[in-house]
Amino acid sequence: MATYRNATAARTIVGRLDHNKDLLEELIAVCKAENVKLAALTAIGAVRKARIGFYNQQAREYQFIELDEPLEILSLVGNVSLRDGEPMVHAHITLGTEAGDAYGGHLAPGTTVFACEFIMQQLDGPEFVREYDDETGLPLWRRQ
Amino acid sequence: MATYRNATAARTIVGRLDHNKDLLEELIAVCKAENVKLAALTAIGAVRKARIGFYNQQAREYQFIELDEPLEILSLVGNVSLRDGEPMVHAHITLGTEAGDAYGGHLAPGTTVFACEFIMQQLDGPEFVREYDDETGLPLWRRQ
Amino acid sequence: MATYRNATAARTIVGRLDHNKDLLEELIAVCKAENVKLAALTAIGAVRKARIGFYNQQAREYQFIELDEPLEILSLVGNVSLRDGEPMVHAHITLGTEAGDAYGGHLAPGTTVFACEFIMQQLDGPEFVREYDDETGLPLWRRQ
Repeated sequence: MATYRNATAARTIVGRLDHNKDLLEELIAVCKAENVKLAALTAIGAVRKARIGFYNQQAREYQFIELDEPLEILSLVGNVSLRDGEPMVHAHITLGTEAGDAYGGHLAPGTTVFACEFIMQQLDGPEFVREYDDETGLPLWRRQ
Repeated sequence: MATYRNATAARTIVGRLDHNKDLLEELIAVCKAENVKLAALTAIGAVRKARIGFYNQQAREYQFIELDEPLEILSLVGNVSLRDGEPMVHAHITLGTEAGDAYGGHLAPGTTVFACEFIMQQLDGPEFVREYDDETGLPLWRRQ
Repeated sequence: MATYRNATAARTIVGRLDHNKDLLEELIAVCKAENVKLAALTAIGAVRKARIGFYNQQAREYQFIELDEPLEILSLVGNVSLRDGEPMVHAHITLGTEAGDAYGGHLAPGTTVFACEFIMQQLDGPEFVREYDDETGLPLWRRQ
Protein backbone atom coordinates (compact mmCIF):
# COMPACT_ATOMS: atom_id res chain seq x y z
CA MET A 1 0.00 0.00 0.00
CA ALA A 2 1.08 3.55 -0.53
CA THR A 3 2.75 5.53 2.27
CA TYR A 4 1.11 8.89 2.85
CA ARG A 5 0.20 11.50 5.43
CA ASN A 6 -2.17 14.43 5.67
CA ALA A 7 -1.21 18.05 5.29
CA THR A 8 -3.17 21.29 5.18
CA ALA A 9 -3.01 24.10 2.66
CA ALA A 10 -1.12 27.11 4.00
CA ARG A 11 -0.39 30.21 1.89
CA THR A 12 0.06 30.03 -1.89
CA ILE A 13 3.18 31.76 -3.19
CA VAL A 14 2.65 33.10 -6.72
CA GLY A 15 5.47 34.65 -8.65
CA ARG A 16 7.84 34.91 -11.55
CA LEU A 17 11.46 33.98 -11.87
CA ASP A 18 14.05 36.35 -13.24
CA HIS A 19 15.27 36.22 -16.81
CA ASN A 20 18.55 34.33 -17.34
CA LYS A 21 18.58 32.72 -13.89
CA ASP A 22 18.84 29.01 -13.18
CA LEU A 23 15.31 27.62 -12.94
CA LEU A 24 15.90 25.01 -10.25
CA GLU A 25 18.21 27.16 -8.14
CA GLU A 26 15.74 30.03 -8.15
CA LEU A 27 12.90 27.78 -6.97
CA ILE A 28 15.10 26.49 -4.17
CA ALA A 29 16.02 30.08 -3.25
CA VAL A 30 12.33 30.97 -2.88
CA CYS A 31 11.83 27.98 -0.56
CA LYS A 32 14.80 28.95 1.57
CA ALA A 33 13.87 32.63 1.73
CA GLU A 34 10.29 31.78 2.67
CA ASN A 35 11.05 28.78 4.88
CA VAL A 36 8.95 26.42 2.77
CA LYS A 37 9.42 22.83 3.93
CA LEU A 38 6.51 21.16 2.18
CA ALA A 39 4.69 22.31 -0.95
CA ALA A 40 3.07 21.41 -4.22
CA LEU A 41 4.54 23.20 -7.20
CA THR A 42 3.54 23.96 -10.78
CA ALA A 43 4.97 26.36 -13.32
CA ILE A 44 4.82 27.36 -16.97
CA GLY A 45 6.93 29.67 -19.10
CA ALA A 46 9.91 29.29 -21.37
CA VAL A 47 13.61 28.54 -21.06
CA ARG A 48 16.63 29.57 -23.09
CA LYS A 49 18.07 26.08 -22.73
CA ALA A 50 17.42 23.07 -20.56
CA ARG A 51 19.21 20.28 -18.75
CA ILE A 52 17.07 17.32 -17.80
CA GLY A 53 17.73 14.01 -16.12
CA PHE A 54 16.62 10.47 -16.85
CA TYR A 55 17.11 7.99 -14.04
CA ASN A 56 18.65 4.80 -15.34
CA GLN A 57 16.74 2.30 -13.22
CA GLN A 58 19.25 -0.49 -13.74
CA ALA A 59 22.48 1.47 -13.42
CA ARG A 60 20.83 3.48 -10.60
CA GLU A 61 22.15 6.81 -11.72
CA TYR A 62 20.88 9.89 -13.48
CA GLN A 63 21.84 10.49 -17.08
CA PHE A 64 21.60 14.10 -18.19
CA ILE A 65 20.47 15.54 -21.49
CA GLU A 66 21.18 19.09 -22.60
CA LEU A 67 18.71 20.82 -24.88
CA ASP A 68 20.54 23.88 -26.10
CA GLU A 69 17.69 25.81 -27.68
CA PRO A 70 14.74 27.97 -26.65
CA LEU A 71 11.85 25.84 -25.37
CA GLU A 72 8.40 26.39 -23.92
CA ILE A 73 7.83 24.99 -20.42
CA LEU A 74 4.74 22.93 -21.22
CA SER A 75 4.52 21.91 -17.58
CA LEU A 76 6.62 21.88 -14.48
CA VAL A 77 5.13 19.68 -11.78
CA GLY A 78 6.78 18.91 -8.49
CA ASN A 79 7.03 19.17 -4.77
CA VAL A 80 9.13 20.64 -1.97
CA SER A 81 10.28 18.57 0.99
CA LEU A 82 13.39 18.29 3.17
CA ARG A 83 16.75 16.70 2.54
CA ASP A 84 19.56 17.06 5.06
CA GLY A 85 17.48 19.71 6.80
CA GLU A 86 17.21 21.93 3.73
CA PRO A 87 14.29 22.46 1.34
CA MET A 88 14.64 20.31 -1.77
CA VAL A 89 12.67 20.98 -4.93
CA HIS A 90 11.86 17.82 -6.86
CA ALA A 91 10.34 18.78 -10.19
CA HIS A 92 9.81 17.21 -13.57
CA ILE A 93 9.56 19.38 -16.64
CA THR A 94 7.99 18.95 -20.06
CA LEU A 95 9.37 21.18 -22.80
CA GLY A 96 8.16 22.11 -26.27
CA THR A 97 10.30 22.98 -29.27
CA GLU A 98 9.66 25.47 -32.05
CA ALA A 99 8.07 22.59 -34.01
CA GLY A 100 5.84 21.71 -31.05
CA ASP A 101 7.66 18.46 -30.20
CA ALA A 102 7.71 17.60 -26.50
CA TYR A 103 10.70 16.49 -24.45
CA GLY A 104 11.21 16.20 -20.76
CA GLY A 105 12.77 14.76 -17.64
CA HIS A 106 13.90 15.48 -14.13
CA LEU A 107 14.65 19.21 -13.80
CA ALA A 108 18.39 19.64 -13.28
CA PRO A 109 20.61 22.65 -12.66
CA GLY A 110 21.63 24.15 -15.98
CA THR A 111 18.14 25.12 -17.13
CA THR A 112 18.06 28.84 -17.88
CA VAL A 113 14.88 30.88 -17.40
CA PHE A 114 13.53 32.96 -20.26
CA ALA A 115 10.29 33.66 -18.34
CA CYS A 116 8.62 31.53 -15.70
CA GLU A 117 5.44 31.82 -13.66
CA PHE A 118 5.17 29.51 -10.68
CA ILE A 119 2.54 28.64 -8.10
CA MET A 120 3.80 27.09 -4.88
CA GLN A 121 1.09 25.78 -2.58
CA GLN A 122 2.76 25.62 0.81
CA LEU A 123 1.52 22.85 3.10
CA ASP A 124 1.46 22.61 6.87
CA GLY A 125 1.84 19.18 8.36
CA PRO A 126 4.34 16.50 9.20
CA GLU A 127 7.88 16.73 7.87
CA PHE A 128 8.60 14.90 4.64
CA VAL A 129 12.25 13.95 4.76
CA ARG A 130 14.22 12.36 1.95
CA GLU A 131 16.69 9.60 2.59
CA TYR A 132 18.34 6.90 0.55
CA ASP A 133 15.91 4.21 -0.61
CA ASP A 134 17.43 0.77 -1.09
CA GLU A 135 14.90 -0.47 -3.61
CA THR A 136 15.45 2.31 -6.12
CA GLY A 137 18.71 4.02 -5.18
CA LEU A 138 16.81 7.33 -5.01
CA PRO A 139 16.36 9.84 -2.18
CA LEU A 140 12.72 9.10 -1.39
CA TRP A 141 10.47 10.11 1.49
CA ARG A 142 11.20 8.19 4.66
CA ARG A 143 8.42 5.85 5.73
CA GLN A 144 7.46 6.55 9.33
CA MET B 1 -21.20 27.50 -21.36
CA ALA B 2 -19.15 25.27 -19.09
CA THR B 3 -20.81 23.27 -16.33
CA TYR B 4 -19.12 23.74 -12.99
CA ARG B 5 -19.64 23.91 -9.26
CA ASN B 6 -17.75 25.19 -6.24
CA ALA B 7 -15.79 23.05 -3.83
CA THR B 8 -13.52 23.83 -0.90
CA ALA B 9 -10.03 22.57 -0.16
CA ALA B 10 -10.00 19.90 2.54
CA ARG B 11 -6.83 18.05 3.57
CA THR B 12 -3.98 17.42 1.17
CA ILE B 13 -2.75 13.83 1.07
CA VAL B 14 0.95 13.65 0.22
CA GLY B 15 2.66 10.32 -0.31
CA ARG B 16 4.60 7.82 -2.32
CA LEU B 17 3.48 4.70 -4.09
CA ASP B 18 5.22 1.38 -3.61
CA HIS B 19 7.76 0.04 -6.04
CA ASN B 20 6.42 -2.48 -8.57
CA LYS B 21 2.75 -1.74 -7.88
CA ASP B 22 0.16 -0.72 -10.46
CA LEU B 23 0.10 3.08 -10.58
CA LEU B 24 -3.61 3.56 -11.25
CA GLU B 25 -4.77 0.84 -8.89
CA GLU B 26 -2.66 2.23 -6.06
CA LEU B 27 -4.10 5.72 -6.49
CA ILE B 28 -7.61 4.27 -6.41
CA ALA B 29 -6.70 2.28 -3.27
CA VAL B 30 -5.66 5.50 -1.50
CA CYS B 31 -8.98 7.11 -2.42
CA LYS B 32 -10.95 4.14 -1.12
CA ALA B 33 -8.92 3.82 2.09
CA GLU B 34 -9.26 7.54 2.78
CA ASN B 35 -12.82 7.97 1.51
CA VAL B 36 -11.83 10.57 -1.07
CA LYS B 37 -14.76 11.39 -3.34
CA LEU B 38 -13.49 14.56 -4.97
CA ALA B 39 -9.90 15.66 -5.43
CA ALA B 40 -7.29 17.26 -7.64
CA LEU B 41 -4.29 15.08 -8.27
CA THR B 42 -0.72 15.52 -9.50
CA ALA B 43 2.28 13.20 -9.39
CA ILE B 44 5.81 12.77 -10.66
CA GLY B 45 8.25 9.87 -10.55
CA ALA B 46 9.17 7.02 -12.84
CA VAL B 47 7.63 3.81 -14.13
CA ARG B 48 9.10 0.49 -15.18
CA LYS B 49 6.62 0.31 -18.05
CA ALA B 50 3.43 2.08 -19.03
CA ARG B 51 0.06 1.44 -20.59
CA ILE B 52 -1.74 4.48 -21.90
CA GLY B 53 -5.01 5.07 -23.69
CA PHE B 54 -5.99 7.23 -26.63
CA TYR B 55 -9.71 7.78 -27.08
CA ASN B 56 -10.69 7.28 -30.69
CA GLN B 57 -13.27 10.04 -31.00
CA GLN B 58 -14.90 8.57 -34.08
CA ALA B 59 -14.92 4.89 -33.10
CA ARG B 60 -15.78 6.00 -29.53
CA GLU B 61 -13.45 3.58 -27.87
CA TYR B 62 -10.09 3.63 -26.16
CA GLN B 63 -7.05 2.29 -27.96
CA PHE B 64 -4.22 1.25 -25.71
CA ILE B 65 -0.49 1.62 -26.19
CA GLU B 66 2.11 -0.30 -24.20
CA LEU B 67 5.48 1.30 -23.58
CA ASP B 68 7.63 -1.52 -22.28
CA GLU B 69 10.62 0.42 -20.99
CA PRO B 70 11.63 2.57 -18.01
CA LEU B 71 10.17 6.06 -18.30
CA GLU B 72 10.11 9.24 -16.25
CA ILE B 73 6.67 10.47 -15.21
CA LEU B 74 6.98 14.02 -16.56
CA SER B 75 3.53 14.81 -15.23
CA LEU B 76 0.47 13.05 -13.97
CA VAL B 77 -2.53 15.37 -13.81
CA GLY B 78 -6.01 14.28 -12.91
CA ASN B 79 -9.00 14.24 -10.64
CA VAL B 80 -11.01 11.98 -8.38
CA SER B 81 -14.80 11.76 -8.57
CA LEU B 82 -17.48 9.08 -8.27
CA ARG B 83 -18.60 6.40 -10.67
CA ASP B 84 -21.16 3.83 -9.60
CA GLY B 85 -20.70 5.02 -6.04
CA GLU B 86 -16.96 4.33 -5.96
CA PRO B 87 -14.02 6.75 -6.24
CA MET B 88 -12.70 6.91 -9.79
CA VAL B 89 -9.29 8.33 -10.62
CA HIS B 90 -9.16 9.99 -14.02
CA ALA B 91 -5.57 10.86 -14.82
CA HIS B 92 -3.49 11.65 -17.88
CA ILE B 93 0.20 10.96 -17.86
CA THR B 94 3.18 12.33 -19.79
CA LEU B 95 6.23 10.11 -19.92
CA GLY B 96 9.85 10.70 -20.91
CA THR B 97 12.24 8.19 -22.43
CA GLU B 98 15.96 7.79 -21.92
CA ALA B 99 16.45 10.09 -24.93
CA GLY B 100 14.11 12.69 -23.41
CA ASP B 101 11.28 12.10 -25.90
CA ALA B 102 7.80 12.59 -24.47
CA TYR B 103 4.81 10.29 -24.86
CA GLY B 104 1.50 10.18 -23.09
CA GLY B 105 -2.15 9.38 -22.82
CA HIS B 106 -4.94 8.34 -20.49
CA LEU B 107 -3.43 6.43 -17.54
CA ALA B 108 -4.55 2.79 -17.79
CA PRO B 109 -4.02 -0.24 -15.58
CA GLY B 110 -0.78 -1.95 -16.54
CA THR B 111 1.52 0.96 -15.63
CA THR B 112 4.11 -0.25 -13.09
CA VAL B 113 5.56 2.11 -10.48
CA PHE B 114 9.30 2.49 -10.16
CA ALA B 115 8.90 5.44 -7.77
CA CYS B 116 6.02 7.91 -7.54
CA GLU B 117 5.28 10.95 -5.40
CA PHE B 118 1.70 12.17 -5.44
CA ILE B 119 -0.22 15.12 -4.04
CA MET B 120 -3.96 14.66 -3.72
CA GLN B 121 -5.87 17.81 -2.80
CA GLN B 122 -9.13 16.52 -1.37
CA LEU B 123 -12.14 18.76 -1.97
CA ASP B 124 -15.34 19.15 0.03
CA GLY B 125 -18.43 20.02 -1.91
CA PRO B 126 -21.13 18.62 -4.13
CA GLU B 127 -20.78 15.13 -5.53
CA PHE B 128 -19.28 14.83 -8.98
CA VAL B 129 -20.77 11.70 -10.51
CA ARG B 130 -19.77 10.20 -13.83
CA GLU B 131 -22.35 8.83 -16.20
CA TYR B 132 -22.49 8.01 -19.87
CA ASP B 133 -22.36 11.09 -22.08
CA ASP B 134 -24.13 10.77 -25.42
CA GLU B 135 -22.10 13.36 -27.26
CA THR B 136 -18.73 11.75 -26.63
CA GLY B 137 -19.41 8.19 -25.50
CA LEU B 138 -17.35 8.91 -22.36
CA PRO B 139 -18.25 8.70 -18.67
CA LEU B 140 -18.39 12.44 -17.95
CA TRP B 141 -19.67 14.42 -14.99
CA ARG B 142 -23.45 14.61 -14.86
CA ARG B 143 -24.87 18.06 -15.45
CA GLN B 144 -27.19 18.99 -12.61
CA MET C 1 15.78 36.90 -6.98
CA ALA C 2 12.28 35.89 -7.95
CA THR C 3 9.37 38.30 -7.57
CA TYR C 4 6.47 36.80 -5.68
CA ARG C 5 3.65 37.49 -3.27
CA ASN C 6 1.40 35.47 -0.99
CA ALA C 7 -2.17 34.49 -1.74
CA THR C 8 -4.70 32.31 0.03
CA ALA C 9 -6.81 29.50 -1.35
CA ALA C 10 -10.42 30.55 -1.91
CA ARG C 11 -13.00 28.23 -3.52
CA THR C 12 -12.07 25.58 -6.06
CA ILE C 13 -14.17 25.61 -9.22
CA VAL C 14 -14.49 22.12 -10.71
CA GLY C 15 -16.19 21.57 -14.03
CA ARG C 16 -16.32 20.43 -17.60
CA LEU C 17 -16.24 22.39 -20.81
CA ASP C 18 -18.78 21.89 -23.54
CA HIS C 19 -18.12 19.75 -26.58
CA ASN C 20 -17.03 21.66 -29.69
CA LYS C 21 -16.32 24.90 -27.87
CA ASP C 22 -13.06 26.83 -27.93
CA LEU C 23 -10.95 25.64 -25.00
CA LEU C 24 -9.26 28.92 -24.13
CA GLU C 25 -12.33 31.09 -24.66
CA GLU C 26 -14.43 28.84 -22.43
CA LEU C 27 -11.90 29.02 -19.61
CA ILE C 28 -11.87 32.81 -19.88
CA ALA C 29 -15.68 32.82 -19.86
CA VAL C 30 -15.71 30.90 -16.57
CA CYS C 31 -13.32 33.44 -15.04
CA LYS C 32 -15.44 36.36 -16.19
CA ALA C 33 -18.73 34.79 -15.07
CA GLU C 34 -17.27 33.94 -11.66
CA ASN C 35 -15.15 37.06 -11.24
CA VAL C 36 -11.92 35.07 -10.89
CA LYS C 37 -8.93 37.41 -10.86
CA LEU C 38 -6.24 35.06 -9.60
CA ALA C 39 -6.16 31.28 -9.83
CA ALA C 40 -4.15 28.14 -10.43
CA LEU C 41 -5.51 25.99 -13.23
CA THR C 42 -5.15 22.40 -14.41
CA ALA C 43 -7.17 20.36 -16.88
CA ILE C 44 -7.21 17.08 -18.76
CA GLY C 45 -9.42 15.74 -21.55
CA ALA C 46 -9.26 15.65 -25.30
CA VAL C 47 -9.51 18.07 -28.20
CA ARG C 48 -10.75 17.72 -31.76
CA LYS C 49 -7.90 19.90 -32.97
CA ALA C 50 -5.41 22.27 -31.40
CA ARG C 51 -3.63 25.53 -32.03
CA ILE C 52 -0.54 26.13 -29.95
CA GLY C 53 2.03 28.89 -29.76
CA PHE C 54 5.79 28.92 -29.50
CA TYR C 55 7.37 32.18 -28.47
CA ASN C 56 10.29 33.02 -30.69
CA GLN C 57 12.61 34.52 -28.09
CA GLN C 58 14.76 36.34 -30.63
CA ALA C 59 12.05 37.64 -32.96
CA ARG C 60 9.91 38.33 -29.85
CA GLU C 61 6.71 37.04 -31.35
CA TYR C 62 4.51 33.97 -31.10
CA GLN C 63 4.56 31.44 -33.90
CA PHE C 64 1.49 29.26 -34.10
CA ILE C 65 1.17 25.59 -34.95
CA GLU C 66 -2.10 23.91 -35.92
CA LEU C 67 -2.58 20.26 -35.09
CA ASP C 68 -5.63 19.26 -37.08
CA GLU C 69 -6.41 15.89 -35.51
CA PRO C 70 -7.96 14.44 -32.35
CA LEU C 71 -5.55 14.66 -29.42
CA GLU C 72 -5.56 13.80 -25.73
CA ILE C 73 -4.92 16.71 -23.36
CA LEU C 74 -2.03 15.16 -21.42
CA SER C 75 -1.86 18.23 -19.25
CA LEU C 76 -3.07 21.78 -19.19
CA VAL C 77 -1.27 23.84 -16.57
CA GLY C 78 -1.72 27.54 -16.09
CA ASN C 79 -2.88 30.53 -14.15
CA VAL C 80 -5.42 33.33 -14.16
CA SER C 81 -4.45 36.95 -13.56
CA LEU C 82 -5.44 40.37 -14.87
CA ARG C 83 -4.61 42.14 -18.09
CA ASP C 84 -6.20 45.49 -18.91
CA GLY C 85 -8.60 44.90 -16.01
CA GLU C 86 -9.93 41.61 -17.40
CA PRO C 87 -9.15 38.03 -16.34
CA MET C 88 -6.51 36.49 -18.56
CA VAL C 89 -5.92 32.76 -18.72
CA HIS C 90 -2.29 31.84 -19.39
CA ALA C 91 -2.06 28.12 -19.99
CA HIS C 92 0.36 25.70 -21.60
CA ILE C 93 -0.92 22.45 -23.00
CA THR C 94 0.66 19.07 -23.72
CA LEU C 95 -1.15 16.91 -26.25
CA GLY C 96 -0.91 13.25 -27.18
CA THR C 97 -1.56 11.71 -30.60
CA GLU C 98 -3.09 8.38 -31.48
CA ALA C 99 0.46 6.95 -31.51
CA GLY C 100 1.15 8.40 -28.06
CA ASP C 101 3.56 11.09 -29.28
CA ALA C 102 3.49 14.30 -27.27
CA TYR C 103 3.34 17.85 -28.59
CA GLY C 104 2.63 21.11 -26.91
CA GLY C 105 2.85 24.84 -26.53
CA HIS C 106 1.10 27.96 -25.36
CA LEU C 107 -2.66 27.38 -25.53
CA ALA C 108 -4.09 29.61 -28.27
CA PRO C 109 -7.61 30.28 -29.53
CA GLY C 110 -8.50 27.71 -32.16
CA THR C 111 -8.29 24.66 -29.89
CA THR C 112 -11.62 22.79 -29.99
CA VAL C 113 -12.88 20.83 -26.97
CA PHE C 114 -13.85 17.20 -27.36
CA ALA C 115 -14.17 16.78 -23.59
CA CYS C 116 -12.37 18.70 -20.85
CA GLU C 117 -12.35 18.55 -17.06
CA PHE C 118 -10.80 21.50 -15.30
CA ILE C 119 -9.94 22.44 -11.72
CA MET C 120 -9.52 26.15 -11.02
CA GLN C 121 -8.17 26.97 -7.58
CA GLN C 122 -9.21 30.56 -7.01
CA LEU C 123 -6.82 32.63 -4.89
CA ASP C 124 -7.47 35.64 -2.70
CA GLY C 125 -4.67 38.11 -2.40
CA PRO C 126 -2.94 40.98 -4.15
CA GLU C 127 -3.71 41.71 -7.78
CA PHE C 128 -1.42 40.14 -10.34
CA VAL C 129 -1.46 42.47 -13.32
CA ARG C 130 0.22 41.81 -16.63
CA GLU C 131 2.07 44.52 -18.48
CA TYR C 132 4.68 44.67 -21.20
CA ASP C 133 8.07 43.36 -20.06
CA ASP C 134 11.06 44.91 -21.81
CA GLU C 135 13.44 42.01 -21.29
CA THR C 136 11.26 39.41 -22.99
CA GLY C 137 8.63 41.30 -24.99
CA LEU C 138 5.95 39.34 -23.11
CA PRO C 139 3.04 40.51 -20.95
CA LEU C 140 4.45 39.46 -17.56
CA TRP C 141 3.37 40.23 -14.00
CA ARG C 142 4.27 43.72 -12.90
CA ARG C 143 6.92 43.88 -10.21
CA GLN C 144 5.67 45.93 -7.29
